Amino acid sequence: MNVDRITSLFEKDLNVINMGLESFSETLVEQGVQSTHVFWSPPAGGDARLLEALDVLNSRKEEIDLANKKALEIIQKGKPEIIDIQIAIDVIPRMTARTVLHAGPPVTWENMCGPMKGAVIGGLIFEGLAHTREEAEQLASSGEIIFDPCHHHSTVGPMAGIVTASMPVWVMKNAVYGNRAYATLNEGLGKVLRYGAFSHEVIDKLRWMRDELAPILKKALERHGPVDMKNLIAQVLQMGDEGHNRNRAGTSLFIREMAPHLVRLDEDRETIAKVFTFMHLNDHFFLNLTMPACKCIIDGARDIENSSLIVTQARNGTEFGIQISGLGDRWFTGPASKVDGLYLPGYTADDAGLDIGDSTITETVGIGGFAMAAAPAIVQFVGGTPEDAMNFTLDMYEITLGENSVFQIPSLDFRGTPTGIDLMKIIERGIYPVINTGIAHKDPGVGMVGAGLVKPPANCFDEALLAFAERVK
Amino acid sequence: MNVDRITSLFEKDLNVINMGLESFSETLVEQGVQSTHVFWSPPAGGDARLLEALDVLNSRKEEIDLANKKALEIIQKGKPEIIDIQIAIDVIPRMTARTVLHAGPPVTWENMCGPMKGAVIGGLIFEGLAHTREEAEQLASSGEIIFDPCHHHSTVGPMAGIVTASMPVWVMKNAVYGNRAYATLNEGLGKVLRYGAFSHEVIDKLRWMRDELAPILKKALERHGPVDMKNLIAQVLQMGDEGHNRNRAGTSLFIREMAPHLVRLDEDRETIAKVFTFMHLNDHFFLNLTMPACKCIIDGARDIENSSLIVTQARNGTEFGIQISGLGDRWFTGPASKVDGLYLPGYTADDAGLDIGDSTITETVGIGGFAMAAAPAIVQFVGGTPEDAMNFTLDMYEITLGENSVFQIPSLDFRGTPTGIDLMKIIERGIYPVINTGIAHKDPGVGMVGAGLVKPPANCFDEALLAFAERVK
Repeated sequence: MNVDRITSLFEKDLNVINMGLESFSETLVEQGVQSTHVFWSPPAGGDARLLEALDVLNSRKEEIDLANKKALEIIQKGKPEIIDIQIAIDVIPRMTARTVLHAGPPVTWENMCGPMKGAVIGGLIFEGLAHTREEAEQLASSGEIIFDPCHHHSTVGPMAGIVTASMPVWVMKNAVYGNRAYATLNEGLGKVLRYGAFSHEVIDKLRWMRDELAPILKKALERHGPVDMKNLIAQVLQMGDEGHNRNRAGTSLFIREMAPHLVRLDEDRETIAKVFTFMHLNDHFFLNLTMPACKCIIDGARDIENSSLIVTQARNGTEFGIQISGLGDRWFTGPASKVDGLYLPGYTADDAGLDIGDSTITETVGIGGFAMAAAPAIVQFVGGTPEDAMNFTLDMYEITLGENSVFQIPSLDFRGTPTGIDLMKIIERGIYPVINTGIAHKDPGVGMVGAGLVKPPANCFDEALLAFAERVK
Repeated sequence: MNVDRITSLFEKDLNVINMGLESFSETLVEQGVQSTHVFWSPPAGGDARLLEALDVLNSRKEEIDLANKKALEIIQKGKPEIIDIQIAIDVIPRMTARTVLHAGPPVTWENMCGPMKGAVIGGLIFEGLAHTREEAEQLASSGEIIFDPCHHHSTVGPMAGIVTASMPVWVMKNAVYGNRAYATLNEGLGKVLRYGAFSHEVIDKLRWMRDELAPILKKALERHGPVDMKNLIAQVLQMGDEGHNRNRAGTSLFIREMAPHLVRLDEDRETIAKVFTFMHLNDHFFLNLTMPACKCIIDGARDIENSSLIVTQARNGTEFGIQISGLGDRWFTGPASKVDGLYLPGYTADDAGLDIGDSTITETVGIGGFAMAAAPAIVQFVGGTPEDAMNFTLDMYEITLGENSVFQIPSLDFRGTPTGIDLMKIIERGIYPVINTGIAHKDPGVGMVGAGLVKPPANCFDEALLAFAERVK
């Protein structure tokens, strides 16, 4: 640099741009110097091990990019269709009369959180394997029950995610790749099993769902034929839903789609009316359809050698866990987070259990929290402002492999939702997936207390990156 | 100003802000001078008569503000409820067997546009008053038919807006002020009466609507009780509808609301299924509910002495007309405009009829074009970009009396829609109401060819202002 120009620098007032530590900038401002602070952090937070792993991975960039391109293409092409309702034990792989599926990564009975324990108790009572809370707790801790993550069985469960043998489940089929996914039918809000409640009214409702709701919807579905979930999800994103915690449009579209077929059934009119009313009074009915639809889409992209795509994000209320396409069925876990949210009247943050549920499968496929820009009204449920909702979506483009070709956000000029979470980008940029979620009471037997936003624990992504570098190198 | 400072001005590079004629700015830019043009026009376009009228009105500002405050309050408090379906002649005031109601301001048979003539022909055939196009044309021109605007009968009709004696109509009641409003049931898209088609299939569908659809919905409505349209419209604005040309959410919410009651009816299941299918296949079904709901709201604010509130905007395909609260039933009209829009395959702007229909009642109450920010996906139907949609809404705050207390736009941080169009602000600011609309083929018998946006003719607002100043002074 020219010496004159350097000299002239000291003749002018200082006007500083500061990067890194904000306190440098603050000190200058205190002394009357103009300083603009730029938020910046070094890649991988400057962690030497992670930087080394990123170096390894960047030396294999071509293969990784190719693998991720393939993974994204499978997501884009996936076409989930609702084809049936069946009883869990009849269709879910490796399901037994004593299997209890749960949300999130593996967890033992002893380590389960309150709401998951509550839902297990309810599930065992529903199955007739226990009759009281005490009996159920004894059975659960006896070693006679096989606890296993839903995700190990092509299944996803919201909140506690408990699935037992005789529960009816949606059968979703990927029309392009042939794989299937399963989820229970949504129970509604308030005192429900998935939030850890297990009172008589909860069990009675589950029985009604098994004995009336499911058989009737199954018959209507047979008359209708496969329901194109890809099309429905694309539509709801133009109608203010994001497919995770706002599902009013989806539930409405599903009802109108099925209505002519429901009314034609040779069933008691009052029974059919009850089915309509149940769906009408539960705007989350569609959640248990977006979840297996997303599972069905992303399962096609599992086990792609060299792919850094995140194929699972799931929480059991104790731990948050992820799985990576190029790393098979291995889980990387960290402690479940607290949810920052809005509470139902009478509850506070002190009542809240930790982050729980498989519903993060929606974010994993680019809807839910990733599509909040499409659903500004959701902030009335999860907190924040419509501007926050917009910014969450914009941030997620930083850590995804591409933009969805079918799921679009009208207010972003029909830009596709940020789709396909890339583990490497997360570590490089220090931006973590945004997740919106319901909040369960921390104790068994209570139920829902609120909804909000949650940040996953960083360490599981760090560990996954190290393992991925080890595998790829 | 200090002389030194003036002198110093000429030592610096010129940096111009130009107001008014843009060519001044362009000349400077051509000569390499930096110039920023500010779009500005004098109040009332500088028209001396209008400026004088505005002076008169501003001298009575206090009374006018008070009257407008009252008018806006009535709009805010209005609570339209669907209470019934009846046959037009049984409920619409001053309806006779030979009355044909039409959209927009008064118009004679001779001066009617093609699609309105087509719809009149269809209406007369539907009533059995004629059997062929020729018979219908002869009867229409014979002087034996009473043509009258829907608006003269507490009624609103989309597009041609033809209402004849035996058509079923929604009965909307303002639960706070007691007044009622009426509209036919929506026929769907394509070849339909309101777009000027009158073939056998059009008439057959109208008969089915009278004989099956309407009686069944009427019975379901009796079981349901009054439907709160204010609540439904508030909801659809959070679901990507604007209530005029996007009604997918509204139609969905109406179907799920009525479904349990429809299925309980002691009617043939196939007949009920047909009703569900008809509504499901017609996303505009809800338009014929938002329209009388808006009519019901704003009719409470008619005839308020000194109020400059616009209480009617309506088009008959030949003329656009408005009515002012403080000026009773007097119409102020101008030539109907061309619509700037998107066309269905096979059609171009050459096929388009002029602006037509009473559906501008939605904009008059602050939804429709005024709420386009809530419905970015509508641009796929009417053209433009989501940014345009946002800007249309923002512009409308300039010419309205207030913001709706119940109809909110999530993406504008739940700001109320711009509500209550003020004639004075339109003239002062030179900003005209934005309207989105369907486009009918210019010839009778064809039907819909597209949808788009339209600017009303300025002269009717000018003339209304002069008359209002004359009345108030």
